[in-house]
Amino acid sequence: MMRPDENAINAVMNGWLDGADHIYPMTVQFEDTDAIGIVYHSNYINYAERARTALLRCIDVDMQGLIERDEGIIIRKIGVEYKSPSYIGERLMVTSTNFNLGKATLNMTQIVSDDDGKVRAILDVQGAFVSSGRPIRIPADVREKMEAAMATTATAS
Amino acid sequence: MMRPDENAINAVMNGWLDGADHIYPMTVQFEDTDAIGIVYHSNYINYAERARTALLRCIDVDMQGLIERDEGIIIRKIGVEYKSPSYIGERLMVTSTNFNLGKATLNMTQIVSDDDGKVRAILDVQGAFVSSGRPIRIPADVREKMEAAMATTATAS
Amino acid sequence: MMRPDENAINAVMNGWLDGADHIYPMTVQFEDTDAIGIVYHSNYINYAERARTALLRCIDVDMQGLIERDEGIIIRKIGVEYKSPSYIGERLMVTSTNFNLGKATLNMTQIVSDDDGKVRAILDVQGAFVSSGRPIRIPADVREKMEAAMATTATAS
Amino acid sequence: MMRPDENAINAVMNGWLDGADHIYPMTVQFEDTDAIGIVYHSNYINYAERARTALLRCIDVDMQGLIERDEGIIIRKIGVEYKSPSYIGERLMVTSTNFNLGKATLNMTQIVSDDDGKVRAILDVQGAFVSSGRPIRIPADVREKMEAAMATTATAS
Repeated sequence: MMRPDENAINAVMNGWLDGADHIYPMTVQFEDTDAIGIVYHSNYINYAERARTALLRCIDVDMQGLIERDEGIIIRKIGVEYKSPSYIGERLMVTSTNFNLGKATLNMTQIVSDDDGKVRAILDVQGAFVSSGRPIRIPADVREKMEAAMATTATAS
Repeated sequence: MMRPDENAINAVMNGWLDGADHIYPMTVQFEDTDAIGIVYHSNYINYAERARTALLRCIDVDMQGLIERDEGIIIRKIGVEYKSPSYIGERLMVTSTNFNLGKATLNMTQIVSDDDGKVRAILDVQGAFVSSGRPIRIPADVREKMEAAMATTATAS
Repeated sequence: MMRPDENAINAVMNGWLDGADHIYPMTVQFEDTDAIGIVYHSNYINYAERARTALLRCIDVDMQGLIERDEGIIIRKIGVEYKSPSYIGERLMVTSTNFNLGKATLNMTQIVSDDDGKVRAILDVQGAFVSSGRPIRIPADVREKMEAAMATTATAS
Repeated sequence: MMRPDENAINAVMNGWLDGADHIYPMTVQFEDTDAIGIVYHSNYINYAERARTALLRCIDVDMQGLIERDEGIIIRKIGVEYKSPSYIGERLMVTSTNFNLGKATLNMTQIVSDDDGKVRAILDVQGAFVSSGRPIRIPADVREKMEAAMATTATAS
């Protein structure tokens, strides 16, 4: 195995757009599993969060700038349905879809599944933009990039 | 500070019954927080799970026996509403309440709050008993202990 | 099990002094274990850190004040020897001992064991006081409290 | 960003050989950071473990087969030197090097750094092969693959 080029590393680390969806690939690690032998249930929420920050990097949202302006997305509500267990070493992907961009909110569905489409967990995520903890309208540059990505991908699908 | 007696250690580690509720005290650790300065959102799910296993110890369910028989409770569905952030060093408690014991299922509400009753997160948890991953009726000894605890506490409240 | 009084809760959450040592009790959680069925090795480092912040609370160091002044202890070096595995539900304790307080550094040994003294892991920890990431002398109030605790306990032992 | 081909995904997920070293790329996640704003210190141990299992996948060791035969590598001793902090969103790599394969042991150095070579942490790891928790000689197929990889890479370097 040779070092992949930077584009490939970015595509894996940041995921890619597929139609109106964002796909984020990942591998189940030992630290994710528990004594039952399967992925511990709270880790799916971590997987989903990794996918969301990967999505922001993928569409070139300047996360560092957001953090410096003390802006960010907080989770208001999350629902998880556990469909089937996952095991150490498995290659999974998180599909983020059904984006719903409000004035200050960002909702989406995130599906953790394997390459054969076997679903492990479905997450319903409701987020809100905040500055220093207070709700704000979605920053214009973030909204623009998210809408562009969704429009492009919707057209592409 | 002297070493507390074994009863006190157990009461803190396993929590205690209060009317029809189970209370589990805990402290926010550095490892629980993230760069935003607050408890990372998936950790509330860990807090809730610690409270549930504390509840089983508190009412003397033989968890080791369950594990040896390859029986256990898996989470089917979980919903979390985030109400306000939590910070490093805070003393919180998880109140498990609204228990609903079906033939093979155990649902409950879990509320993470501080001593002044300020709510941080509310979790709606739907669990199911399984043996080697397959749904089973709740084992008789577990059901008996859970019903006794609920009845006692309901009477006591 | 009744609600223990506040002193008992504090004694368990913050641990207690025993001769020249600090003792911190804890319970192995599901989230700590991995698919091998034992505590995942990095978690002993979390256990040790929980014990160190418990020690600070136990001797009344104002951690919130430290954080507000952007001061704190960072770890420079840590060594872990794994002696025997730990399992879900086990009651363990972290004994912090061999404190060595330099001008700007704090070294100690931390031993994770069960109540029968069976050792699970031994940690050798080298910490340094920093302000905004830069080394500083140990703040006078922190030094005073640490030396008082060590002197008292050394006399007491 | 398009979906990278399977080889690229594997190269990123499993890392690649570079001379006598194995390189594993990764991104710092929110869940890895703490309220100080930097990567929490125990997470470097997780990063190192992810790199080691990636290495096994990279050289085609059948980890699932090992697990089914109840064989595996346990960590006997680990030492970490923290050199400089890491921040949310950073692209880091874990370089595994200085492999030392004994009859039953596997030692190595693992360096977490960024692309400019700025070192964050250096880990000294001593592992041992076990079956059902007891030390065993390194399984022949694993030894063969590790030696081949090291020879190839040593020659290549």
